[in-house]
Amino acid sequence: MITAIDVIRSKRDGLELSTDQIDWVIDAYTRGEVADEQMSALAMAIFLNGAVPREIADWTAAMIRSGITLDLSGVGKPCVDKHSTGGVGDKITLPLAPLVACFGVAVPQLSGRGLGHTGGTLDKLESIPGFDVDLTEERVVAQLREVGAVVCAATGDLAPADKKLYALRDTTATVESIPLIASSIMSKKIAEGADAIVLDVKVGSGAFMKDFADAKTLAETMVRLGADHGVDTRALLTDMSIPLGRTAGNALEVRESLEVLAGGGPADVVELTVELAREMLAAAGRTDADPAEALADGRAMDTWRSMVAAQGGWPDAALPVARETMDVTADTDGYVVDVDAYAVGVAAWRLGAGRTRQGLPVQAGAGVEILKTVGEQVRAGDPVFRLHTDTPDRFEAAAESLAGQWQVGPEPAKRGPMVLDRLA
Amino acid sequence: MITAIDVIRSKRDGLELSTDQIDWVIDAYTRGEVADEQMSALAMAIFLNGAVPREIADWTAAMIRSGITLDLSGVGKPCVDKHSTGGVGDKITLPLAPLVACFGVAVPQLSGRGLGHTGGTLDKLESIPGFDVDLTEERVVAQLREVGAVVCAATGDLAPADKKLYALRDTTATVESIPLIASSIMSKKIAEGADAIVLDVKVGSGAFMKDFADAKTLAETMVRLGADHGVDTRALLTDMSIPLGRTAGNALEVRESLEVLAGGGPADVVELTVELAREMLAAAGRTDADPAEALADGRAMDTWRSMVAAQGGWPDAALPVARETMDVTADTDGYVVDVDAYAVGVAAWRLGAGRTRQGLPVQAGAGVEILKTVGEQVRAGDPVFRLHTDTPDRFEAAAESLAGQWQVGPEPAKRGPMVLDRLA
Repeated sequence: MITAIDVIRSKRDGLELSTDQIDWVIDAYTRGEVADEQMSALAMAIFLNGAVPREIADWTAAMIRSGITLDLSGVGKPCVDKHSTGGVGDKITLPLAPLVACFGVAVPQLSGRGLGHTGGTLDKLESIPGFDVDLTEERVVAQLREVGAVVCAATGDLAPADKKLYALRDTTATVESIPLIASSIMSKKIAEGADAIVLDVKVGSGAFMKDFADAKTLAETMVRLGADHGVDTRALLTDMSIPLGRTAGNALEVRESLEVLAGGGPADVVELTVELAREMLAAAGRTDADPAEALADGRAMDTWRSMVAAQGGWPDAALPVARETMDVTADTDGYVVDVDAYAVGVAAWRLGAGRTRQGLPVQAGAGVEILKTVGEQVRAGDPVFRLHTDTPDRFEAAAESLAGQWQVGPEPAKRGPMVLDRLA
Repeated sequence: MITAIDVIRSKRDGLELSTDQIDWVIDAYTRGEVADEQMSALAMAIFLNGAVPREIADWTAAMIRSGITLDLSGVGKPCVDKHSTGGVGDKITLPLAPLVACFGVAVPQLSGRGLGHTGGTLDKLESIPGFDVDLTEERVVAQLREVGAVVCAATGDLAPADKKLYALRDTTATVESIPLIASSIMSKKIAEGADAIVLDVKVGSGAFMKDFADAKTLAETMVRLGADHGVDTRALLTDMSIPLGRTAGNALEVRESLEVLAGGGPADVVELTVELAREMLAAAGRTDADPAEALADGRAMDTWRSMVAAQGGWPDAALPVARETMDVTADTDGYVVDVDAYAVGVAAWRLGAGRTRQGLPVQAGAGVEILKTVGEQVRAGDPVFRLHTDTPDRFEAAAESLAGQWQVGPEPAKRGPMVLDRLA
C-alpha cells in the first residue's frame, strides 16, 4: 500500500519516485485524500532534491489523466498551440493567434488571469467591450473551425491536479522548480489536444527565468515531455531583459497589439510575433507562409476582428482609457540604456492593472506607457514613462517602483535579436 | 513586512532565518495566519537545508513564548525534569520519577500518549485502575510539594506552537530533523519550569536515532538550548539496540516497573533507572544520594504508591491481563544473540497496545513479553516471546512482524553498558 508519508519520505531522502507512487499521489491529491500540507512538503522536497526525466514524464502524464483531454478532431485543420512562460507585458498572444489562424491553421489559446506583476491574457482581452472569455468546449471547436483563433479561459476539467497544485505552489514558495514548472505547463497544453506546441520561453530580468541556462533546461524538459506524448513540440528562447514593446497594462497592450495587426507597432513586438508565427506555421507544415506579409496586408487584422466578434466583442468599440495620467521624466540628457522589465510590471500592477488576490477586479485602462525605450535619445525634462490609472493615489507607489530601475547613459545602447535560441 | 512566502523562500534558498522572521512565523502559525501547507513546506526546507544554532535557539524561544510557562516556585524543593527520546518499551519514567522524588527532589513528568510503535507513558499509567492523568496546574504543584513525583498529561497551554507543529510533522515526513526534534523537546521541557533537565537520548535500532553520531548531535543541541535558557541540562546517550527489559505493552510494562521498584526487575532496566536517577540527583545537588539503595529498601516503592494514590489510582489493584496469549518458539538450540527492538514495538502495537490514529483507545493488557532475551540460552521448541491480546485475530500479524527479526546463535552474546556517553 502506498501512503503519502512514504512518497514524501522517498523524495526527501533523494530517491526516485516510482511510476506507481506518482500515479497514486497525483490521483489521491486530486481526490483530496492527500492533504495540502502533505503535497506542499512533497513539492518542497522536489524543489530541493529535483526529479529525473522519467519522474517528470510520469508526473505530467498523471496530471493529464486527472482530467479530460479536449477532442479537437472536429476542427478539420492542423491545430497548433502556443505557450509563453510568464513575463512582463507579454501581449504576443493577441496578434499571434489571428496571424497564424489567417493561414488556415487553428490556434487554441486557453489562458489564465494575471496575479502579481505578470498580467493575464484574459484580463487584457476583457478590456474590449463585450468580449467573452468563458466558452464551452463545443464553442471552442466551432470557433477554431470557422475563425481559426480562440483565446478563452481554461476549463477546470483540464488537468485539475495541476490547477490545485499550482495554487498551492504559489503560497508555499515552491514555484521556481523546473520539474514542477515543466509538468504544470505541459500537462495543461497536452490536455488541450493540439497537434503541435510552440513554447516561447522568456529569459531575462522581466521573465520568470532570469538565467539563460535555466531557461534552456526548462525548454529542453518541456520539448521532451511533448515528444513523449507524440506532440510535435518546439521552443524559442526569447529575450525579456527589457520590457517587450512600449506598454504594460490591459487596454494599453490591446492597443499596441492592434498597431502590430495594422502593420505597425514596436519593432521588438513585431519581430517576436513573426518569429513565433513562423515556428507555429512550420509545425503545421506551412513553411511557405509569410506572416510578415499577412500583417502588412491586413489578413491578420481581419481574422482578429472575426475572433473578437465571434466571442461577443465589438471590434470597433473604443478601448477604455484611465482617468488620470502622470509622467516620469528624465533628469539628464543622453540615451536610455536600460529599463528593468520587472519594475515596469510592478508599476503597472500598483497602478491597478493587476490584482493582489485571486478574484479581485482589475482596471482596464491602468498601466505604464514607455515613451522612451532602450536606444532612444532623451533630454532632461523629457517624459520617459506615462503612468495611467483611475486611482491617482497610486501614482506615488508606482513611481517609486520605477525609481532607479532605468538608466540614461552617454551612448546609445543597441538591442540584440529577440530569439536567443531554438529547440525542436 | 514579513510574509510566510518570504520566510519559506529564505530557508529554501539556504539562507539563515532572522530572529524576527522566526518570531513572526511561529506566532503567525500559532494564530492560524500561516497555513499548515506553508509550515510543512518550511519544515521540509529546514529538514533538507538545516538550521544553525542561533536559528534553533530562536525557534525554541519562540515556541516557548507561544504559550504559558509553569510556575514551580511554590514547590519548595529543587525540580528536575527528565525526557527520553522515543524508543520501544521505554518504561523508565515509571520507576525513575518516584526513585528520585524519594530523596526530596521534585520530578514533574508531563507526558504524551503513544502513536504507532512507540508506546506512551500515559497509556501505561492508565492501565492502573483509577489513575487520572489530567491534572490542573495547581494539583501538579501541590503533588510535587507533597509527594515529589507527578506523571500527567501535558496541558495544551505549554508550547502550543510545538503541539501544532508536532502533529503536522507526523503527517508530512518531517519528523527526523535534529533542529526540529531538539526545539520541540526543549520548548516543552523549558516551559515546564524545572531547575534542571536530564535527557535520555536513546541510540540504536529500537530508537528514533539509529546512529550514534546523530544522537550525539541531537544531545549537544539540546544541552546547548537548555543552557541558553539558564536551565542546567545534561544528557546521557543510552543503548536501545535491543529492547529495554522484557516487556512492551501498557500493563506489562507497569508490572515490570513494579518489579524494579520492589528491588528486582531486569538488569538493564535497573541499570538505566539508577544511572538516570544519579544524574538527576546530581543536578539537584544531591551527589550523596544512593538510588540503588532506595530501590532495595522500599523507599522508592513508597513514593510510587503515594504518587499513584495522589492521582486517584489504586496501588494494590490487580493490573489488567489480556484475554489470550500465544507463544513464539525457537527452532534451534543455542543462545539468543539479537532481538530487534523496533520489531517488538510493532508487534505490541499490532496486538493492540498502541493506536493507529490519535484518539483511539488502547488495550491495557496487550503486548509482548520477551521470555528469552539477548544472552540467554534456548532449546528448540522453547517459547521466546509471549504475545498478549484481547483480539486474537491479531496474533498472526504480530507474529509476522517478529519473523526474522531475532536470531539464535551458537555463542552467548554479551550486552555492553547501558550508558554510552554523557554530556553536561
